[in-house]
Amino acid sequence: MKIALAQINPTIGFFEQNQSKILKMINQAKKQACDLVIFSEMVLTGYPPRDVLEKQEFIDSQPLMSLIQNVHGIGVICGYVESSGDHLFNSAVLFENGQMIHKSRKQLLPVYDVFDEQRYFQPGDTNDIIAYKGHQLGLTICEDIWNDMDFFGKRIYQADPVKELIQKGADFMINISASPFHLGKGVLKMKMIQSLSQKYAVPFVYVNQVGGNDSLIFDGSSVVIDQAGNIVAQARDFEEDFITYDTKTNQGVCHPISDCDEETVLKALVLGTRDYVHKCGFQKAIIGLSGGIDSALTTAIAVKALGKRNVRTVYMPSLYTSSENDIDTKQLAENLGVDREIVPIDMMFDQFLQNLPNDFNRDNHGLAEQNLQARIRGTILMAFSNKYNALVLTTGNKSELAVGYCTLYGDMNGALAVISDLPKTMVYAISRYINKDQEIIPQSIIEKAPSAELKPDQKDQDDLPEYERLDIILKAYIEDHKSIDQIVEMGFNQSLVLDIIQRIYRNEYKRQQAPPGLKVTSKAFGYGRRYPIAHQSIL
Amino acid sequence: MKIALAQINPTIGFFEQNQSKILKMINQAKKQACDLVIFSEMVLTGYPPRDVLEKQEFIDSQPLMSLIQNVHGIGVICGYVESSGDHLFNSAVLFENGQMIHKSRKQLLPVYDVFDEQRYFQPGDTNDIIAYKGHQLGLTICEDIWNDMDFFGKRIYQADPVKELIQKGADFMINISASPFHLGKGVLKMKMIQSLSQKYAVPFVYVNQVGGNDSLIFDGSSVVIDQAGNIVAQARDFEEDFITYDTKTNQGVCHPISDCDEETVLKALVLGTRDYVHKCGFQKAIIGLSGGIDSALTTAIAVKALGKRNVRTVYMPSLYTSSENDIDTKQLAENLGVDREIVPIDMMFDQFLQNLPNDFNRDNHGLAEQNLQARIRGTILMAFSNKYNALVLTTGNKSELAVGYCTLYGDMNGALAVISDLPKTMVYAISRYINKDQEIIPQSIIEKAPSAELKPDQKDQDDLPEYERLDIILKAYIEDHKSIDQIVEMGFNQSLVLDIIQRIYRNEYKRQQAPPGLKVTSKAFGYGRRYPIAHQSIL
Repeated sequence: MKIALAQINPTIGFFEQNQSKILKMINQAKKQACDLVIFSEMVLTGYPPRDVLEKQEFIDSQPLMSLIQNVHGIGVICGYVESSGDHLFNSAVLFENGQMIHKSRKQLLPVYDVFDEQRYFQPGDTNDIIAYKGHQLGLTICEDIWNDMDFFGKRIYQADPVKELIQKGADFMINISASPFHLGKGVLKMKMIQSLSQKYAVPFVYVNQVGGNDSLIFDGSSVVIDQAGNIVAQARDFEEDFITYDTKTNQGVCHPISDCDEETVLKALVLGTRDYVHKCGFQKAIIGLSGGIDSALTTAIAVKALGKRNVRTVYMPSLYTSSENDIDTKQLAENLGVDREIVPIDMMFDQFLQNLPNDFNRDNHGLAEQNLQARIRGTILMAFSNKYNALVLTTGNKSELAVGYCTLYGDMNGALAVISDLPKTMVYAISRYINKDQEIIPQSIIEKAPSAELKPDQKDQDDLPEYERLDIILKAYIEDHKSIDQIVEMGFNQSLVLDIIQRIYRNEYKRQQAPPGLKVTSKAFGYGRRYPIAHQSIL
Repeated sequence: MKIALAQINPTIGFFEQNQSKILKMINQAKKQACDLVIFSEMVLTGYPPRDVLEKQEFIDSQPLMSLIQNVHGIGVICGYVESSGDHLFNSAVLFENGQMIHKSRKQLLPVYDVFDEQRYFQPGDTNDIIAYKGHQLGLTICEDIWNDMDFFGKRIYQADPVKELIQKGADFMINISASPFHLGKGVLKMKMIQSLSQKYAVPFVYVNQVGGNDSLIFDGSSVVIDQAGNIVAQARDFEEDFITYDTKTNQGVCHPISDCDEETVLKALVLGTRDYVHKCGFQKAIIGLSGGIDSALTTAIAVKALGKRNVRTVYMPSLYTSSENDIDTKQLAENLGVDREIVPIDMMFDQFLQNLPNDFNRDNHGLAEQNLQARIRGTILMAFSNKYNALVLTTGNKSELAVGYCTLYGDMNGALAVISDLPKTMVYAISRYINKDQEIIPQSIIEKAPSAELKPDQKDQDDLPEYERLDIILKAYIEDHKSIDQIVEMGFNQSLVLDIIQRIYRNEYKRQQAPPGLKVTSKAFGYGRRYPIAHQSIL
């Protein structure tokens, strides 16, 4: 049996385009004499549609019947939303020559982190195996394979759909997924699938969605792993792809994927940025350049995602801006081939101060005066956005967003927060990676001490611990769910740890008004992390 | 048996204060010779703590053991978070004289609208009845009683905890809740409990949380309904209360609650505003006054919530501002006894236009120029906020927010959106209600045609249908989940309906960056309505 893995990038609710992508890959599979072509989870709707699932028109718009009736000469597996009685199921269908041959329903419905599947779907009962072209196929959906006691040492769910199908006689496992990327998950996933293949001595075909949908990035990286645990077919990461695998010869097409964290994250952010801008119906982006590393990296990513002609930068110096930032941003813009507008903000700052009560003044350098400058800049960027039909990309990193070192309605203004899930230390690492062959981000930008430049001689490290230490504490608390005591045991001063964690809680209000940020770690700010604002911190 | 219903307003994670409120009401119950005092769901932590539940320190901080060990001479029922093995349960405990006598676990865990309970909790298995002071008590938690086939005509969940307890011999039902308010829910809830009382011929004691937590408002309105369906004890709505009921005499204390929608919504918004500001650690609020009805109503609510000395208003006229707005806002401020600062924005507007590229100019009246004015105002309000340690309250209503008739980082700036779940028609109704005894909101504000005043002679109805029609369509689509066809059948032009629904989808990006808004309808924007931004609308 020759199988095609069809890794497409659907847009949520864009049924026509999704269908045409599906048909294109079906035809490609037929041309290559495949017996079966496999698409990802909920490929008809795109994943995740979230509460649009509550609209019956949305469910009814899926072109499943049209596909079933019009495709002949090949078996097709694809994911869709099944409406049955009052309930929805996250289902997969195998159809061929106008007939629906089999249907599997997702049994394990995740509700952690970014997932809300029990909000929408009923879990399926146990599924049957499929006798197809001499094989006994076991068809599962995403989470269904993430519950192996031997691999994880514990279980979230009682059912084990993989084991059930094996016990029913499956000799070939298929999993269709829409599994959001985060750093480290790819390796874990491969190990898990390899472990399942070897444990049950069956090959595994895994077809994953690719593309960005709001803050989630799907990496594709569809794969076939044989019963010995070898990767025998591999689709590209972070782009659409089509590969084949032949069960008789155990031979498949292997495309390269990244094995370097910096490259992986960079690909993820480029894809996430491109898809967000394009799927929102835009082509162009606006970025405020400060002369610092965050806006430099964001611009470099935007240029890769959208093309240099679609990226416009704005440099907005004030009295507190170091003169080298002019040189550095000019050089950056030149290196990237993007326009740089200059809009000094001092006259607007003065005008605000003149019109506000006497409590406000330049020499005050208080929080109000500092934020005012950031908000003038944010307002300028939004003026460009409105005038030139371009989305503003924000430039804040995760370390800042965690402790609130950012101005709401100022530098937080924008449609997408490109690097808001990158700790500052990762911002440096990715920037150096971008420069590996030639200097794209001027070295002076990488080397200068980070500063908000909202008052004289201000440096981030006046208010914050060094980012190397801050990022370790933040990861321990946010991503690794360590307790305060455990973090202190890692070698940090208790008052420092308490101060940082209190800042995290205190700044929840800012994050709840932040634009969607591209998720690249196991726990990003955004809808995967749901905190109250009005509460007493646990400290 | 004499029972006390203890309706307190807990703050999430403020264990010390919650405990002291609990102890105070326990003592009050003892003084009144009660046998049993009943508190609401998760009263130790406050509801909903959301992802803070993932922190073990939070779970461990609950003062349950301290309460159990220190309270003597009375039975106490209270809700808490039970940690057992790897799982959490939303549980209720009955303790007396140092002993835990009984524990019930919540069986039905809602995951619709604002609820995420399956994200955190495991459902409990069937619960036992409690033999206590000659009664057989059936103890349930919130959602457990919302699944009666006879009353609703359908079931969300398979289990029916009420029926189970009755079958086990319960002769007295207790439900502890943290049930968020929305208009119409109170009446539905009373009917449902009355129906259960009558169906099973048992009395029902219902103790509900009171208070605001971010966008959710809990109305209290705890009640005892006897087996004939009569209300025999009633606690106040929207404030803390303590009432008693005697099973022997079937007599209880009845406090008045509102039966008028306008009064109910007003009480809800006042409580929600007060609690948000105070629970965030603030006392003061800033509101931008335009001369329109939205900002007038918001200010009136803020004054009721915080006191006139804690409310400061800012009037920010431009060239496009009608002169009567000066008179009207002055009168409003006088009527309410609040300060009114005047900060004209024209000089700042001019300064921006001078510093921006030539594409920007005053005579353009384009979206960029219009939004620029709103953002200057938003920046001024935030400057006041930062300088005077006061939260900005935003003034946008639900109709505007639905169709995007508002400026992100402009009039949407603020910590809390007080009336963002009020359709414009309801804004008028509440405003007239506030004026019922004397003119608080000047009649001219109520009568003038709504306008954003961002360009000459602009009126809302240039861009939008009349609010009377718009609000019907919005409610049908957002709250009542009607299809496009169904709305057209209600008598609206199809192109109008499509245009409005497309606007709803297109403006999702603004709402995702909006501040929390107080929920008063069955479907508010916010985390109870989760939509993707980058997607193709279903139209």
